[in-house]
Amino acid sequence: MTVPVSPSGAEPPGPALGVAVLGYSFMGKAHSNAWRNVNAFYPSPRVAQRVLAGRGAGEVAEAARRFGWEESTTDWRTVLEREDIHIVDICTPGHLHAEQAIAALEAGKHVLVEKPLANSVEEAELMAAAAAAARSRGVQSMVAFNYRRLPALALARRFIAAGRLGDIRQVRVSYLQDWLADAGAPMTWRLRREAAGSGAIGDLASHAIDQVRFLLDARIASVSGTVNTFVTRREGERGPEDVTVDDAAWATLRLASGAVASLEVTRCATGRKNSLQIDVFGSRGGLRFDLEHLNELQFFDATAPAETQGYTRILVTEPEHPYVGAWWPPGHTLGWDHTFTTQAADFLRALDEGAVPSPSFEDGLETQRALAALEASAARASAAVEP
Amino acid sequence: MTVPVSPSGAEPPGPALGVAVLGYSFMGKAHSNAWRNVNAFYPSPRVAQRVLAGRGAGEVAEAARRFGWEESTTDWRTVLEREDIHIVDICTPGHLHAEQAIAALEAGKHVLVEKPLANSVEEAELMAAAAAAARSRGVQSMVAFNYRRLPALALARRFIAAGRLGDIRQVRVSYLQDWLADAGAPMTWRLRREAAGSGAIGDLASHAIDQVRFLLDARIASVSGTVNTFVTRREGERGPEDVTVDDAAWATLRLASGAVASLEVTRCATGRKNSLQIDVFGSRGGLRFDLEHLNELQFFDATAPAETQGYTRILVTEPEHPYVGAWWPPGHTLGWDHTFTTQAADFLRALDEGAVPSPSFEDGLETQRALAALEASAARASAAVEP
Amino acid sequence: MTVPVSPSGAEPPGPALGVAVLGYSFMGKAHSNAWRNVNAFYPSPRVAQRVLAGRGAGEVAEAARRFGWEESTTDWRTVLEREDIHIVDICTPGHLHAEQAIAALEAGKHVLVEKPLANSVEEAELMAAAAAAARSRGVQSMVAFNYRRLPALALARRFIAAGRLGDIRQVRVSYLQDWLADAGAPMTWRLRREAAGSGAIGDLASHAIDQVRFLLDARIASVSGTVNTFVTRREGERGPEDVTVDDAAWATLRLASGAVASLEVTRCATGRKNSLQIDVFGSRGGLRFDLEHLNELQFFDATAPAETQGYTRILVTEPEHPYVGAWWPPGHTLGWDHTFTTQAADFLRALDEGAVPSPSFEDGLETQRALAALEASAARASAAVEP
Amino acid sequence: MTVPVSPSGAEPPGPALGVAVLGYSFMGKAHSNAWRNVNAFYPSPRVAQRVLAGRGAGEVAEAARRFGWEESTTDWRTVLEREDIHIVDICTPGHLHAEQAIAALEAGKHVLVEKPLANSVEEAELMAAAAAAARSRGVQSMVAFNYRRLPALALARRFIAAGRLGDIRQVRVSYLQDWLADAGAPMTWRLRREAAGSGAIGDLASHAIDQVRFLLDARIASVSGTVNTFVTRREGERGPEDVTVDDAAWATLRLASGAVASLEVTRCATGRKNSLQIDVFGSRGGLRFDLEHLNELQFFDATAPAETQGYTRILVTEPEHPYVGAWWPPGHTLGWDHTFTTQAADFLRALDEGAVPSPSFEDGLETQRALAALEASAARASAAVEP
Repeated sequence: MTVPVSPSGAEPPGPALGVAVLGYSFMGKAHSNAWRNVNAFYPSPRVAQRVLAGRGAGEVAEAARRFGWEESTTDWRTVLEREDIHIVDICTPGHLHAEQAIAALEAGKHVLVEKPLANSVEEAELMAAAAAAARSRGVQSMVAFNYRRLPALALARRFIAAGRLGDIRQVRVSYLQDWLADAGAPMTWRLRREAAGSGAIGDLASHAIDQVRFLLDARIASVSGTVNTFVTRREGERGPEDVTVDDAAWATLRLASGAVASLEVTRCATGRKNSLQIDVFGSRGGLRFDLEHLNELQFFDATAPAETQGYTRILVTEPEHPYVGAWWPPGHTLGWDHTFTTQAADFLRALDEGAVPSPSFEDGLETQRALAALEASAARASAAVEP
Repeated sequence: MTVPVSPSGAEPPGPALGVAVLGYSFMGKAHSNAWRNVNAFYPSPRVAQRVLAGRGAGEVAEAARRFGWEESTTDWRTVLEREDIHIVDICTPGHLHAEQAIAALEAGKHVLVEKPLANSVEEAELMAAAAAAARSRGVQSMVAFNYRRLPALALARRFIAAGRLGDIRQVRVSYLQDWLADAGAPMTWRLRREAAGSGAIGDLASHAIDQVRFLLDARIASVSGTVNTFVTRREGERGPEDVTVDDAAWATLRLASGAVASLEVTRCATGRKNSLQIDVFGSRGGLRFDLEHLNELQFFDATAPAETQGYTRILVTEPEHPYVGAWWPPGHTLGWDHTFTTQAADFLRALDEGAVPSPSFEDGLETQRALAALEASAARASAAVEP
Repeated sequence: MTVPVSPSGAEPPGPALGVAVLGYSFMGKAHSNAWRNVNAFYPSPRVAQRVLAGRGAGEVAEAARRFGWEESTTDWRTVLEREDIHIVDICTPGHLHAEQAIAALEAGKHVLVEKPLANSVEEAELMAAAAAAARSRGVQSMVAFNYRRLPALALARRFIAAGRLGDIRQVRVSYLQDWLADAGAPMTWRLRREAAGSGAIGDLASHAIDQVRFLLDARIASVSGTVNTFVTRREGERGPEDVTVDDAAWATLRLASGAVASLEVTRCATGRKNSLQIDVFGSRGGLRFDLEHLNELQFFDATAPAETQGYTRILVTEPEHPYVGAWWPPGHTLGWDHTFTTQAADFLRALDEGAVPSPSFEDGLETQRALAALEASAARASAAVEP
Repeated sequence: MTVPVSPSGAEPPGPALGVAVLGYSFMGKAHSNAWRNVNAFYPSPRVAQRVLAGRGAGEVAEAARRFGWEESTTDWRTVLEREDIHIVDICTPGHLHAEQAIAALEAGKHVLVEKPLANSVEEAELMAAAAAAARSRGVQSMVAFNYRRLPALALARRFIAAGRLGDIRQVRVSYLQDWLADAGAPMTWRLRREAAGSGAIGDLASHAIDQVRFLLDARIASVSGTVNTFVTRREGERGPEDVTVDDAAWATLRLASGAVASLEVTRCATGRKNSLQIDVFGSRGGLRFDLEHLNELQFFDATAPAETQGYTRILVTEPEHPYVGAWWPPGHTLGWDHTFTTQAADFLRALDEGAVPSPSFEDGLETQRALAALEASAARASAAVEP
């Protein structure tokens, strides 16, 4: 007997949560993928892909069709008025985040915002205040630092929290890309300060700092920063133009715990396509992670017998590891995009449980403050600044 | 303005191809994932997830709901009668493949069958005959060796076909798992010959031999095989029971080209979760692949200056690489499951173009013959046998 | 006060053991290096580099000067008559080993012979008999399988012997080189059967089989072998000439314990310069070794908690590891040539203690028999043969 | 006929250069090893190991015997008076370097000094002045940054100098060790400022900065530094004691060329035994090096076709590579200690050719100034300082 999945009038197990995504390019595609797949893997509340919003009517309609949405729109504000939409997921450029997120929260929608939270500390402060106000009304929010949902990094956090590394002394984080290594690469809006806010700082250092905070539950006490633009002028559509954002940034962060973190982010690291590497060194052990091998975590247990000490390359593909049980049998690797599906699942679970999703807008604000401190320090010849 | 994606009565760009999947466990989940996502990434004909078939009514209904199907059924034969189903995708255990595939082909459905094609050469021959007959009526078929759709292995094939390796002399393929390394692991149907046909041979050596054929366009001239069961008795639900399939197999294959391939497959390789490794050595270059790092291909160019020779670790994540452009921007890695989505896309494209999908049932039959030769040789103290 | 190291008449701590090396090319250089350095690192009996023997008077004199020898000679037999020479170290081509080693043993000299022990089982049997006879007179002998002295492989043996891997099921050994991958590489004496005995078999498979025996204390019950010559004719000094030895060989070895070892050796593995790789899989753990990273051993402990299981990359550079304490502080890597120095030290220590050095000529004979079985099996279409 | 290597009265090819080494512990052993072996591998002027100097009469006599010296002494000044000694090689603690080196130069001896050149800029300036004065009299000097003689790093410099990387933008250097990660590790003189000068700065950052200078021919324009001591008190022989040197240091260096180098050195990087890693990123390519794999250099050629781009792992073991031809056939790896032998060879070759050995005392002074700037910046909250 063939039975329809959703019998009319009695759709189990209750009505779905309606979702709208704002933005349909790179991040819009990644978040759409998450909403389309989350119910297949996680026992989350059921979701319905209601509407995809974007500026170009034709493009957003075509994207909506491909990505599995019921409808598309060019007017994101109409989304806020609909009762069948419960979640607004913001994947637009950074300068729109504050306006859209605050409006959605005020309209009573749960809000997920792609990182970085905003382009400035000021915007981030407004957003955090709106999030706190909404939270008191049961309206939740989260900033989408997707790497927190990598099984390997979730395992790293678990090890650190359990004391497997002892007292943490040093963290090394680098996020290296190379798409601006070629001086002939053209000018884009991403290289204009007024549009992008910053360069590698907002795009890459935000991830790096979020990981330091996530892995260690760290508070950043001071930041010494250096910033550089290696290619200061690039050919644009209307001739040569000044690059007004950073190509690369470096920082040394003193944490309130006494640990020290070093950070290097760049878009000029020739040969590194998307290389986020993290080392954590503690009194009892060490950890290493590399986004190029995102299914792995290296763990050094300094309490093991000397004869067998070494970095253990853990394939984080087993049911004992965070999130992995939802996916495939042991030994089957995940890719970059699965982080977004897991992020959606965690967000849904928090909504379902009435819990506060993490990382919050306040987390996003803290990261924004650290980025601002980095730039302020760089302007003072790298003299350390408190965030 | 909000517009629905599918206006009533004019669903662009033409009616969807209806799909049914038979089987809802591991492979059913992986294939469902492919059908749910293929249109989001590839410009394939549109598909509709019509029905998921399986034995347990409750389980298949729940799976259908989670995996995005419109309906579920416990009677796979009803699927063959429906006009809104154009593709039957068979993910059931091997001993059901022949019956189901032949019936579906005869019903005029395009058929995709999970590997290995069958449990025996005899079944495979019947299936290949049915596929040939159906093909003459415009009904297509394919066997699902998903690793052919790994960008790294597709790139390897491209390099070999282009002569970048010169004359191929040696191939080394190993497929190592460890889920039977523990002698205390319990008896299952997979360890009974009558149900599973064989052990590592059908499960793992089939992939290994398919890759030798795929990468080199090879014909296998002779096979010297060795087979072993390390743990010959295991505890079952009704007490101890003999294991009647192989734990591991080894083979040396002489190819018609004069090349030699070595093969090792096992489920007792302690510490190797799902490790398929391939080396190809030619007169002008070499290639290495490791499924644990499936986004990478290592290429050695023996025609480069001596000073700079070495294996180049190509991150197969760039738009210039096979399939990658459909997914994410440069440097963003894929996981194991993406191979199935790409496989579905290639199958759909062939249907759309009226082309013969590859690998065909005849390809599956050739692999089956090589596996049978391996076992026959093992029974003759490893003396070489022609497939 | 400056004091001479060796005051006349009272050279502490007793007269040195005089050494002669026969052969001054690649292996003669490596063994000379060992004798020149052994006393600087190991608390061995003191040695004196008495004489280097070789065919070309000028070349051997120059080599003796560079490599630290007191004298040189073109007549190796004169060495046997000297009372100030206690050790004869044979680094000549394989077809000379039997004659030289037997004569030296009969002259009462301790003998070290470079691997493989001989070019044939017959020669090896004569040598083993001579070694046994000499041993009864207190004259010792050893075959120089230098990789037994790699700290990483000595540690591997220690782990296996201590039961860390449980019951061993599978061993994978490959020794891959590429100096014959180029079909234009010229003919040499090494490619003529009458001179070299065999190709990759004697040169590389001897190491592979010695390691199987060393690591597991294994007895080889049967061998299925395959042999191939990819480039059958090469340009020599007097025109084209047939290659009469193998380029590559493959074998599956059944061990008396029930374990199975696979073996692949070749000189046509494009891009692999000197790549000896070993995997050992047991019921409780696994080991991996790669000569390209000879200071490392990878160990998988299947008894560890699932969450932290993985291959641990042990840097075998710590004082807790075999041999390492003799060299440098923790973390300082050794190279290929240090194995010979350690080999000399172990040989000297055995002499000093009146112990039987290992591996003995009998060990060398066992390996020779396995190599002969590999070739015999290959001649029978890979049907298994007992050694 | 047996011929002695050195017939009385006519020692070919001319008298040897007499060498004295001051210091017989770790570095004394490493330098002794170099002098004992240099003539076996390099066509350098012949050397004679005349005398080893050290404080403990018994210890130095024993070390001299083991390491191949003719004599030992407890009075290093007597060495300067001997006509049969031409080279004085200083391996003593840093606070003795200036006195000994200046005295030796004034006595007309060529001088090799272990790194770092001195414990302070003041000492280094005196030494550089003495070296310049001696050079005008034909007396040469060199500071022993042994990693300059690693074939892989010499190859890296060659690639950069040849423009293979284009304009260099970024360098990342880290030198990570872990012998102080354990808070229970005891107090030693190395952790007292008065004796050791500094901690990781002098020991490890000196290598890091020397490599930046060596690889890029760089001039350092400014330094922003951070310094930390994680374990501030340790148990000494006479009870707890304050640690007065750094455990770790970080720096961002602006180079005169416009490039930026980041630097991290530490003795608390749990799990890293002796890990020097270097990345260089340029407009046309990238390089990676890791001391744990010292026979390898990774090279990314951004001018290669996109399809085959990737980091090429060059095994720097071929005759086409710097220094390698002196050692073993292709594919045979070197260890850490071989750098010292090559360093001795380069020093001897410079003496033979009347050339100025490199790196000079002036080079050592420049590095010392950068280290001082790092400390000065750290004292100013990381505000950048010119060296």
